[in-house]
Amino acid sequence: MPAFDYDLFVIGGGSGGVRSGRLAAAMGKKVAIAEEFRFGGTCVIRGCVPKKLYVYASQFGEQFEDAAGYGWTVGETRFDWRALVAAKEQEITRLEGLYRKGLDTSGAEILDTRAVLVGPNTLRLSSTDGLVTAERILIATGGHPSPHKDLPGHELCITSNEAFDLPELPKSILIAGGGYIAVEFANIFHGLGVETTLIYRGKEILSRFDHDMRQGLHKAMVGKGIRILCEDIVQEIVEGPDGRRQVRTLKGDELVVDQVMLALGRVPNTTDLGLEIAGVETDQRGAIVVDEYSRTNVSGIFAIGDVTDRVQLTPVAIHEAMCFIETEFRGRPTSPDHDLIPTAVFSQPEIGTVGMSEEAAAKAFAELEVYRAEFRPMKATLSGRQERTIMKIVVNAADRKVLGVHVLGHDAGEMAQLLGIALKAGCTKDDFDRTMAVHPTAAEELVTMYQPSYRIRNGERI
Amino acid sequence: MPAFDYDLFVIGGGSGGVRSGRLAAAMGKKVAIAEEFRFGGTCVIRGCVPKKLYVYASQFGEQFEDAAGYGWTVGETRFDWRALVAAKEQEITRLEGLYRKGLDTSGAEILDTRAVLVGPNTLRLSSTDGLVTAERILIATGGHPSPHKDLPGHELCITSNEAFDLPELPKSILIAGGGYIAVEFANIFHGLGVETTLIYRGKEILSRFDHDMRQGLHKAMVGKGIRILCEDIVQEIVEGPDGRRQVRTLKGDELVVDQVMLALGRVPNTTDLGLEIAGVETDQRGAIVVDEYSRTNVSGIFAIGDVTDRVQLTPVAIHEAMCFIETEFRGRPTSPDHDLIPTAVFSQPEIGTVGMSEEAAAKAFAELEVYRAEFRPMKATLSGRQERTIMKIVVNAADRKVLGVHVLGHDAGEMAQLLGIALKAGCTKDDFDRTMAVHPTAAEELVTMYQPSYRIRNGERI
Repeated sequence: MPAFDYDLFVIGGGSGGVRSGRLAAAMGKKVAIAEEFRFGGTCVIRGCVPKKLYVYASQFGEQFEDAAGYGWTVGETRFDWRALVAAKEQEITRLEGLYRKGLDTSGAEILDTRAVLVGPNTLRLSSTDGLVTAERILIATGGHPSPHKDLPGHELCITSNEAFDLPELPKSILIAGGGYIAVEFANIFHGLGVETTLIYRGKEILSRFDHDMRQGLHKAMVGKGIRILCEDIVQEIVEGPDGRRQVRTLKGDELVVDQVMLALGRVPNTTDLGLEIAGVETDQRGAIVVDEYSRTNVSGIFAIGDVTDRVQLTPVAIHEAMCFIETEFRGRPTSPDHDLIPTAVFSQPEIGTVGMSEEAAAKAFAELEVYRAEFRPMKATLSGRQERTIMKIVVNAADRKVLGVHVLGHDAGEMAQLLGIALKAGCTKDDFDRTMAVHPTAAEELVTMYQPSYRIRNGERI
Repeated sequence: MPAFDYDLFVIGGGSGGVRSGRLAAAMGKKVAIAEEFRFGGTCVIRGCVPKKLYVYASQFGEQFEDAAGYGWTVGETRFDWRALVAAKEQEITRLEGLYRKGLDTSGAEILDTRAVLVGPNTLRLSSTDGLVTAERILIATGGHPSPHKDLPGHELCITSNEAFDLPELPKSILIAGGGYIAVEFANIFHGLGVETTLIYRGKEILSRFDHDMRQGLHKAMVGKGIRILCEDIVQEIVEGPDGRRQVRTLKGDELVVDQVMLALGRVPNTTDLGLEIAGVETDQRGAIVVDEYSRTNVSGIFAIGDVTDRVQLTPVAIHEAMCFIETEFRGRPTSPDHDLIPTAVFSQPEIGTVGMSEEAAAKAFAELEVYRAEFRPMKATLSGRQERTIMKIVVNAADRKVLGVHVLGHDAGEMAQLLGIALKAGCTKDDFDRTMAVHPTAAEELVTMYQPSYRIRNGERI
């Protein structure tokens, strides 16, 4: 008689939880996975997937404009927000179905319920109020946008969660935040015709990214007509008599907009999970503390993905899931590798980046070679669109190793993915130089910058 | 007193010639460069650049259609061919100016004339009928589309040269050939609304490419409405009473079209260049024979680019130019490296490829792992467009080295460029596996195929 109901009980049907559950079940383990909302998690339901679909939707306006330079005349165009929301909903429902089907095929038991810990190996299911036991429990509950409850009027605001399903497209929006979510939504709303303002407390959007990316994107966004207020924050939101939002900022600006979206960070989903009862340690932000094998301080309880607040990205959660399975079920202890993670910001233009920013590298290495190119993308020559692609390679002068590559421009996300292979393999600038160009592409610039644009020695540009 | 008028005389103002002239002049050498037509060569004037601009133009129709699935209504659209030709002309004139300016700034003497050899170190200029001498002569005269003079009615046909500047967009076109030029133009014309047929003698378009790319593109083109006739050739073209072209094929098909375009290979520009007088050896195709340092059999005479018929690509010509300068003017003998050249076909969908096809690798290695993914690109989910992206990684099972990567789909050219770095650096499949995904991108598929789709052992699929 088995000592537990399950070999593995997964809480949370997002990217990390589903991958873990599927892999363990496919190995013949007895697995249950509990999800209280919809399978697919942030990524599928209210993150990466709907975001990228909305990015596509928001790019058509520029396509219609660009066509003129290529000989096309385009009649009047109209955008229907509700049609987009409905199409998005249909697609994520389809994906949700695939997630469920994958779990089902693997043999995992799907539980549409909230599950909370009541002890190290025991959970209570809200659906039945019954208890179940498991040898291993994996917490993969993800996170949610911070509601910013200390902000007066926060209850009048939306977050990215609501932004996807607004009943009406607002005429104007203020987005608070300077991270990638704020920036991506600012570009989406602007592209769909919404008068868009971004407000951010920092000196420049996208902190920790390379400064050329930050400035380049800022300039491009302003060039499109997005208003960006840096070094300022929202101090209060009140509802006006017309139902609109009246916003007062720290610097004393008064804005009246239809919607205010808060994109001021994300919070791990650890409230009322029974962590205290089970004795699972969390940090001051509420994230579950784990070791290099995703183990919590309680034996038999593990956590992966956003709830651990390591690197909040879908592929990282999936990678942590695969490492967890290797370690716990295949007897091959494997730590997640969080080094050199390529990433993209689906702003317009996109940012694709892997490795160190120039600023970070300048602190870590005595001498850098920096290769930088800025040019008009080819498509813009005939469209007449004012836009610039920026590419930058940061190289350690001592051994010519490429430390970071940063791209602002079309397809930068696709580029970051493949640059990631080169950097992960430890390629040098000589490897880049030896590569033949593919013409005409934008990426060929990355293999044809033979001379450094400048050098950084002891943190100083020379 | 110098023994020669010039240190270097370049014949041909294309990519290879201009780069050579500019670099040598910038070193302080006395350089002249002669071009009888327009600076920029095939690439700028009637190749890569106008081709890609026309590709952009031909993609808008699909954009207009795709918009509907994303909530957009687009009014009636119209395309004006003459407007595109004029816009293209303006852009290539601008680029031509940049080429001239670059030469001028470097200190090279620009000669708008035909120049022919009259001896090992001597040339005659058509403009003045005068003779000049040079210590080194570089032939970079490129190539041109084969007129296929043995074909009855060939004089009624156009080639890619004329296709860019047709006075009217034809209602229908037959394109003969199955190489990348034929395929790219078929997609361009189709995208601009022309009823397009491709006829090719081989079993499948794009010989020597990986078979998945060939079949995948064939299927995609047919799906769009392009007619493809394989294993057949044009046998005769006559002009009908209505001025249209009546075409008879070997298999007995009769086609009536507005234009017939021949894309049946390219011929080196070596006629009437004085090669025989100077004693420069050519091969049976008329290409100049060179050694690994781009030296002809005559001392002091060199040749690079398409006229040597090594690899007919702009970046290769430029690379050969740089190697020539290193070898002859900087005392560092450097051979062009023609190994692992990444390349793109700007068909719709694009092909991006680097390294060996599965077929070539199967002949060269005892055992292969083949990783293959086929999926619907994300944008097509809401647009409803029926299209498939195909990605394939060919790996040597013995050492896990990646031998070839092949992509059919959006941005495949950009991907090929950056995959080129990884392959040139000798990356293994493990390097791919170690790379974190960037989500949601298409390229992430290339780093998340962990298990081979199949293996090839001793040339057999197992």
